[in-house]
Amino acid sequence: MELVLGSVLPQPTHAPQRLHEAMRYAVLGGGKRVRPLLVFAAGEIVDAPAERLQYAAAAVELIHAYSLVHDDMPCMDDDALRRGKPTVHVQYDDATALLVGDALQTLAFDVLASHTLADETRDQLHMLKTLARASGSHGMAGGQAIDLAAVGKQLTLPELEMMHILKTGALIRASVELGSYCGMPMEAPAREKLDRFAKCIGLAFQVVDDILDVEADSATLGKTAGKDAAADKPTYVALLGLKEAKLHAAELRQEALSCLAEFGERGRRLQELADFIVKRTF
Amino acid sequence: MELVLGSVLPQPTHAPQRLHEAMRYAVLGGGKRVRPLLVFAAGEIVDAPAERLQYAAAAVELIHAYSLVHDDMPCMDDDALRRGKPTVHVQYDDATALLVGDALQTLAFDVLASHTLADETRDQLHMLKTLARASGSHGMAGGQAIDLAAVGKQLTLPELEMMHILKTGALIRASVELGSYCGMPMEAPAREKLDRFAKCIGLAFQVVDDILDVEADSATLGKTAGKDAAADKPTYVALLGLKEAKLHAAELRQEALSCLAEFGERGRRLQELADFIVKRTF
Repeated sequence: MELVLGSVLPQPTHAPQRLHEAMRYAVLGGGKRVRPLLVFAAGEIVDAPAERLQYAAAAVELIHAYSLVHDDMPCMDDDALRRGKPTVHVQYDDATALLVGDALQTLAFDVLASHTLADETRDQLHMLKTLARASGSHGMAGGQAIDLAAVGKQLTLPELEMMHILKTGALIRASVELGSYCGMPMEAPAREKLDRFAKCIGLAFQVVDDILDVEADSATLGKTAGKDAAADKPTYVALLGLKEAKLHAAELRQEALSCLAEFGERGRRLQELADFIVKRTF
Repeated sequence: MELVLGSVLPQPTHAPQRLHEAMRYAVLGGGKRVRPLLVFAAGEIVDAPAERLQYAAAAVELIHAYSLVHDDMPCMDDDALRRGKPTVHVQYDDATALLVGDALQTLAFDVLASHTLADETRDQLHMLKTLARASGSHGMAGGQAIDLAAVGKQLTLPELEMMHILKTGALIRASVELGSYCGMPMEAPAREKLDRFAKCIGLAFQVVDDILDVEADSATLGKTAGKDAAADKPTYVALLGLKEAKLHAAELRQEALSCLAEFGERGRRLQELADFIVKRTF
C-alpha cells in the first residue's frame, strides 16, 4: 500500500516542492490503512486483480488523509498530533495544510479516473460517483458539519448514529463498494449484504474510536486522547456508558459477520477486518 | 447557468442545512461565469448538446467557486469581499468555509461522473481526469502554492507566467477541453489549436486582472481593489509597467484569435469571449 501511495503522490522534487513534500508527509508513513484493507478484502469476494484494487485503495486513503489534514486545522479540531507526528499545519503552516487537503482530494479522483479499474468503463464512472457521494456534503463533509454543530449539545442515539454514518461510515461503505466493483459482476442481493456488512463495521469503527478515546493514552493512539470528551463532543461512551458502548460494538460486529455468511471462504479477509476493527487498541 | 448550478447544488432544506445554505451562498448569485461560457463556446465548435455542456460547465464553475472560498480564508488571502458580498468565512465562519470549499470540489467530480457527457464513456473518464489534473497540485492548487511562496519576492516574467498558467490558466484550458469533448470527435491538430487558444486567453485573463487591480475600484470589481499591489504580490503591472501590460494582453488576444481561424463561424462565441476577457472592466 505504501508503494502505490508513494507512486501516485507527486514527487517532492517536482515544483511546487513544498506542497508536494507536505502532501507526502500527510499521507505516507503512518495510519492504520483500514480503508485500503477493506478495498482489498472486498475485492477478494469478486476475485479482483490487485493492480486494480491498489488504485481504488489509494483513492479512498487519499480522501481519508485529506479529511484528517483539514479536520486537524485550527478552525476545526485544532489538533497538534496525528499518527504520532505533528499535524500538517503545525509541521508546515495553515495555508499549506489547506492546499494539501485540497490537492489530496483532487488526487483521489485523478487516480480513479486515470487507471483501468473495472471491465466496463460505465462501472468505473459508477466508482467515481460512489467516492464523490461518500465524500461530499451528503457523506463525509456533511457528517463533519453535523459534528461541528453538535459540540456541546446532547444528541440522541439516532442523531449520533446519523452523524457517524455520514462522517466515517460513508467512506468505509464506499471502500467496500469500490473493491467489489474491481472484479467479477455481483448480483444485487449479494451486493446488498456486502453493503449491510460495511454499514455495521462503519458504525462499529466509530463506537470503538469513542471507547479508545476514553481508555487509551495518546502514545498508543498516535493522536490526542480524551480530546472528544474534553471538547464536550457527543460520543457513544457519553451517551451509552462504557459498558453499553462495548456491548454495542460487539453486536455490530456480530451483525456484520452474519452478512458475510454467503460468501464463504472469499469473505475471510472481511471477517478478519471486522474483528480487527472491534478488537483494536489504537 | 444559474438554473443548472441551483439544481446540482444540495437543497438548503436538506441536512446539514447550514453547510448546504453556505454552499449555495458561495456559488449562486454572482460571478462572471467565464469558465462556463468557455465550456459552452467550445461546445459550439463540436456541435455539442446543451444538456451535456451545462453539466460540464457546472463542474468547472464549482471547482472555481471552491478555490475562491478557500483563497479568501484568513490563512490565505484573508479577503472580506467577493462578488460584492461578504466572503463565506465572514458570512458564516472559518470551519464552514473550509467544509464548503471541500464539498464544492467533491460536487464538481460528482456532477461529471453522474451525467452522460460524451458519446464514449472512455471520453467521459478523460474529462474527469482533465478536470482533476487542472485542479490539483500540478494545476490550480499548485499555482496557489507558488503564489503563496512568491509574496514579497521579485519574480521573472517566465516565473510569473508559470504561476498563472497553473493558478488560473489550467482551469480555463480545462473548460475549453471539457466543452470540446461533449460533441463530435475532433482531430488532434484542431484540438491543439483550440488548446493554444485556451492557453493564450488564460494568460490574457490574468494580465487583465492585474491591470484592473490597479485601475478599477472595489465597487466595480466586487472584490478589494489594489490588494495585490498592497500585499506586495508579483503582478504583470509591477513587472512590465501598465502600458506594456496592456500591450501584452492585446498580443495574447491576437494570438488567441489566430488559433480560431480554421473553425470559421463555429468559433465565433470563442472569439467574442476572447474579446470580453481582454476588454472587460470587472
